[in-house]
Amino acid sequence: MDAKPDKLSMVVFSGTTDKLFPVGILASGAVAMGMDVDIFLTFWGLQAFAKRAQGAPPKFSEDYKEMAGMFAQVLKAKNVPGPIETLAVAKKMGNVRIFACTMTMDLLGQTKADFIDLVDQTAGVGEFMDRARDAKITLFI
Amino acid sequence: MDAKPDKLSMVVFSGTTDKLFPVGILASGAVAMGMDVDIFLTFWGLQAFAKRAQGAPPKFSEDYKEMAGMFAQVLKAKNVPGPIETLAVAKKMGNVRIFACTMTMDLLGQTKADFIDLVDQTAGVGEFMDRARDAKITLFI
Amino acid sequence: MDAKPDKLSMVVFSGTTDKLFPVGILASGAVAMGMDVDIFLTFWGLQAFAKRAQGAPPKFSEDYKEMAGMFAQVLKAKNVPGPIETLAVAKKMGNVRIFACTMTMDLLGQTKADFIDLVDQTAGVGEFMDRARDAKITLFI
Repeated sequence: MDAKPDKLSMVVFSGTTDKLFPVGILASGAVAMGMDVDIFLTFWGLQAFAKRAQGAPPKFSEDYKEMAGMFAQVLKAKNVPGPIETLAVAKKMGNVRIFACTMTMDLLGQTKADFIDLVDQTAGVGEFMDRARDAKITLFI
Repeated sequence: MDAKPDKLSMVVFSGTTDKLFPVGILASGAVAMGMDVDIFLTFWGLQAFAKRAQGAPPKFSEDYKEMAGMFAQVLKAKNVPGPIETLAVAKKMGNVRIFACTMTMDLLGQTKADFIDLVDQTAGVGEFMDRARDAKITLFI
Repeated sequence: MDAKPDKLSMVVFSGTTDKLFPVGILASGAVAMGMDVDIFLTFWGLQAFAKRAQGAPPKFSEDYKEMAGMFAQVLKAKNVPGPIETLAVAKKMGNVRIFACTMTMDLLGQTKADFIDLVDQTAGVGEFMDRARDAKITLFI
C-alpha cells in the first residue's frame, strides 16, 4: 500500500526577488522533508519566470528599501543562489511541479514558450485549486 | 448522508487592485470546482469594499509600478471585469460568504452600512478562525 | 485519550507594522479559540523582532501611504497596542511558539541574542515545514 507524500502548494502572485526567495527556500525545505511541491505562478510571480526577465538585477520590495542595499550586498558577498536557482535545485532533489496561470498568459498574450524551462505546464486556476485541495499546506505568496 | 463541500477560506488584508484580482479569481475557481468560499476582509482589504472607494481608478502595488501601466491598459482594452465584479459573479455561481472584520471597523469608526452589499456580515477574528479550521485551504492575501 | 489542539501556523516574511498587526491579532484569535500557534519569523519579519528595531515608529506599507497617516493617528488616539505587544499578550494566554529562521540569521550574521525574548528558539525551514504539516491552517504573511 502506497502512502501518498504530503504536499506543499504555493500560489505565487508576488514577483520581487525578496518575496521569491521564500518560494525557493520553502520548496527546498518541503522536498527535504519528503513532501511534494506544487507551485502556481500568476500575475507578477509568473512574469519573474519569463525568459526576458532573466539576468535582471535583484529587485526588492519598496517596503524594505532601507534594508535592500545591505541585503543585496550580503547576497552577493556570500554568493547566495537566487530564488530561481534554488527552485531548480529543489526540483532536482524532489517532486516539484511548476504551473503557469493560463489567465495571466491570455491577458498578456503570452505562451508557454515565453517562460523558462523550469515551468512544467500551464494550468487554469480551477485546476490548481482542485490539486491544492489535498495539500497539507497551501500558501499565497 | 450529506458530504459537506470542501471550503476555501481567505483572509484579505491587502487592498491594491492587483492583489484583489486573485481574491475574485480564486473564489471563482473554487466555486467552479464545487467548493464553498469564506472571505474575511480586514485592514486595507476591507477598505476596498467601502462604498466611498467604489469607482476609484485601479491602484497597483508600488512594487510593480514599472509594469502597472501596461497591465492597466490590457485590463481596459480587453474589458476585464475588476476584482469586485468577479467576486459578485462568483457569489451568484456558488456559496461565497464575505465577512467584514469588526476590529478594523471599530478602529475606524465604521459600520456595516459603510460597505457595499457584497459584504454579508461582520465577524470577529476568533469567529473567522473558528470557521477556517475546517477549510481545506486557507490563504492570507 | 488526549485530543491535540488544532494549530495555526504562520510564516511571517513581512516586516511592516501594518502587516504585523494581523500576526498578533490572528494569534490572539486562535488562542481564544483554544488553538495552538506556531510562528516562523523570516527575512523582514524576523528583523522586526530584532532588539535594535524596538521603539522605532510604526512603518506602513508603501502601497497604502495615502491611508497611513490616518491609521497611525487612530492607533495613537485609541492607544491600540502594537503587533508585538499583542503577540506578547497572546503568548501569555495560550500556547504560542515563536521561531527565528536560522537561514536569515546566518545570512545576516545574527544570533538569537540579537532578538527580543518573545522569540523562543531558532529553527530551519525544513523543521518548521515539518511542524506545519499537522497544522489546520498555515498562512504566509
